Amino acid sequence: MTVTAPQGFRAAGVTAGLKASGRPDVALVVNDGPLDAVAAVYTSNRCKAHPVLWSERASADGHARAVLLNSGGANCFTGPEGFQTTHASAELVGELLGCGAADVLVCSTGLIGLPLDREKIGAGVRDAAAALAVEGGAAAATAIMTTDTVSKQALAGGEGVDGGRFTLAGMAKGAGMLAPGLATMLVVLTTDAVVEADELDTALRAATRVTFDRLDSDGCMSTNDTVILMASGASGVRPAPGALAETLTAVCAELARMLVGDAEGADHDIAVEVVGAASEDDAVAVGRSVARNNLFKAAVFGKDPNWGRVLAAVGTTAASFDPDRLDVSLNGVMVCRSGAPGDDASLVDLAPREVRVLVDLKAGPHTATVWTNDLTHAYVHENSAYSS
Amino acid sequence: MTVTAPQGFRAAGVTAGLKASGRPDVALVVNDGPLDAVAAVYTSNRCKAHPVLWSERASADGHARAVLLNSGGANCFTGPEGFQTTHASAELVGELLGCGAADVLVCSTGLIGLPLDREKIGAGVRDAAAALAVEGGAAAATAIMTTDTVSKQALAGGEGVDGGRFTLAGMAKGAGMLAPGLATMLVVLTTDAVVEADELDTALRAATRVTFDRLDSDGCMSTNDTVILMASGASGVRPAPGALAETLTAVCAELARMLVGDAEGADHDIAVEVVGAASEDDAVAVGRSVARNNLFKAAVFGKDPNWGRVLAAVGTTAASFDPDRLDVSLNGVMVCRSGAPGDDASLVDLAPREVRVLVDLKAGPHTATVWTNDLTHAYVHENSAYSS
Repeated sequence: MTVTAPQGFRAAGVTAGLKASGRPDVALVVNDGPLDAVAAVYTSNRCKAHPVLWSERASADGHARAVLLNSGGANCFTGPEGFQTTHASAELVGELLGCGAADVLVCSTGLIGLPLDREKIGAGVRDAAAALAVEGGAAAATAIMTTDTVSKQALAGGEGVDGGRFTLAGMAKGAGMLAPGLATMLVVLTTDAVVEADELDTALRAATRVTFDRLDSDGCMSTNDTVILMASGASGVRPAPGALAETLTAVCAELARMLVGDAEGADHDIAVEVVGAASEDDAVAVGRSVARNNLFKAAVFGKDPNWGRVLAAVGTTAASFDPDRLDVSLNGVMVCRSGAPGDDASLVDLAPREVRVLVDLKAGPHTATVWTNDLTHAYVHENSAYSS
Repeated sequence: MTVTAPQGFRAAGVTAGLKASGRPDVALVVNDGPLDAVAAVYTSNRCKAHPVLWSERASADGHARAVLLNSGGANCFTGPEGFQTTHASAELVGELLGCGAADVLVCSTGLIGLPLDREKIGAGVRDAAAALAVEGGAAAATAIMTTDTVSKQALAGGEGVDGGRFTLAGMAKGAGMLAPGLATMLVVLTTDAVVEADELDTALRAATRVTFDRLDSDGCMSTNDTVILMASGASGVRPAPGALAETLTAVCAELARMLVGDAEGADHDIAVEVVGAASEDDAVAVGRSVARNNLFKAAVFGKDPNWGRVLAAVGTTAASFDPDRLDVSLNGVMVCRSGAPGDDASLVDLAPREVRVLVDLKAGPHTATVWTNDLTHAYVHENSAYSS
């Protein structure tokens, strides 16, 4: 299940004292090759954290040997000192692994504006490098958790072009500030397939576009979102046509579903499925508008099938539709039919954790599903007392 | 203080039984002239309620004699029957007042998707017409309340071009689904100034743009938002240059501030002031993005000066700025200076109800202030059990 399940990877997770809780907070994932291909997507937030600014440059050439990750501080809006901390950490990893700093990507997560202790993270890097092991994937996944209640890992296998199998795995963290611009959260994916960087890049962008990019838990885009995919080639297997994309999308979708399922304070996981859209962009825009509607999200928390709030959210978009033709179903009950009250809304059962909202725009053949969560007392409680 | 304070207006507020609570729910405001000039702005939500669709047409010629308002049902997504109910209500008002139905504007507020009882509203119209009085303004303001805890009224006087004074007054309702597209909520404004419809229209658009349009309590745009301004000319006073705009903007700003102060479940009223913007649009976009950030709003509820969430919200906009030059102040403490930690955030006192967030983009001379509220347990509680 872990990022070290594919051949050619080692990992570690250690405690460097960055978190007041004393929980593990530094992770290292190393690609031992023979390939060192990498692709990555980053937050489109224009206020990017220092590790994002660093990793964007370091991954640009399609090569990386390692990813260093820390929780306990986002290293964002920490001034020039903050960038130097990221740089020094990458140099230390390079020194310990015998590669250049530019082959080390860095990810940070935690509170924005909190200076990261350079000595503590340095000690953590040394401990992690010493602890690197092919059994270290689970420890790494634990060390990147912030408000996550469970670590998130996924694994899938794919077919090679000449037979044989390759493996692809991933780990993810993220429970709040969960509304991707391009990618979201921290995600490290590994594969032992023989794939070059440009192929990795194409596959990664395609997969994140329909998985992490369709996740909008709380409408708040992070400054640190990063998804990294590394290929070691250690299986010697070159993927069959479509096999990389399929495997990658499956692992990303599984991780994204886990993120929704563990979102801060949520009682419900809500799939907003938009059908009959004139374009995929229209479907995503409508899905996202419903997913960001606090009133609808609070209604779901209260198990109240208040479908008028879905339609009010649809109406704020520029998508093609005629209000008098809209259908809305909640968990299979068509509560609004052609823009008028439909079946009895009291038949809707909102007790299960998973809620399905279906909006039919009747304007074309395109569809998209955006995942979100309900707005709960626990969300307000958790987020009214995070930094203090 | 009431809409009947200007000369030439009568109003009434009665109980028609549309609300389960038995509280007043039908209001009528009548312009007795000599002028019957009107201007109105409506929600830009594309899913417009039937009374909005009706009033858009009825106000297009710049003439109206009366506004009928009901709480206890938004008459939105109620099918063709719903539009007929609006039409029949306007016809009945016209019959009772001796004018055409097209001179009667209609506003509804309450739950979306709930059919409006035509008999009950008809009886309410008859009762309201019989109760019309120059002392009826306060009763009308009470009858349009939904989750509002207080009725909202404001009054100002202005100078005439040849001396003399005119009066301008308004009433408003709205406590949730409070994020205007063009206008917001239900607002009726009256003046006894001598003003033609086109001047009214210009003044109303200018005033709402910097008042109601800068209000974003919960990011949820209503299907029923309407702001109507009627002039009777009964004072015989033609406003001095600028006097109408000034008076109107003052009354709108006072009503908008009252709406923020009574927003559902709010503990804090938050003014997000953006300065140093390259354009007014940039300033509004940044202010609105901060105003819609659930994480920041929850932090304010928890009295937590978590300024990183302000910057993360700024970063999601397309406004001109350099992240390394941004300043953020919370209640006068500059917690972020030039994109790095500034003064001690623990000095920020978030105990008062009013919170001032100041964001300096350092990109130009433009400014704007967007008002919002915090995200509280009471908001979640109230909105998780509205329709049931």
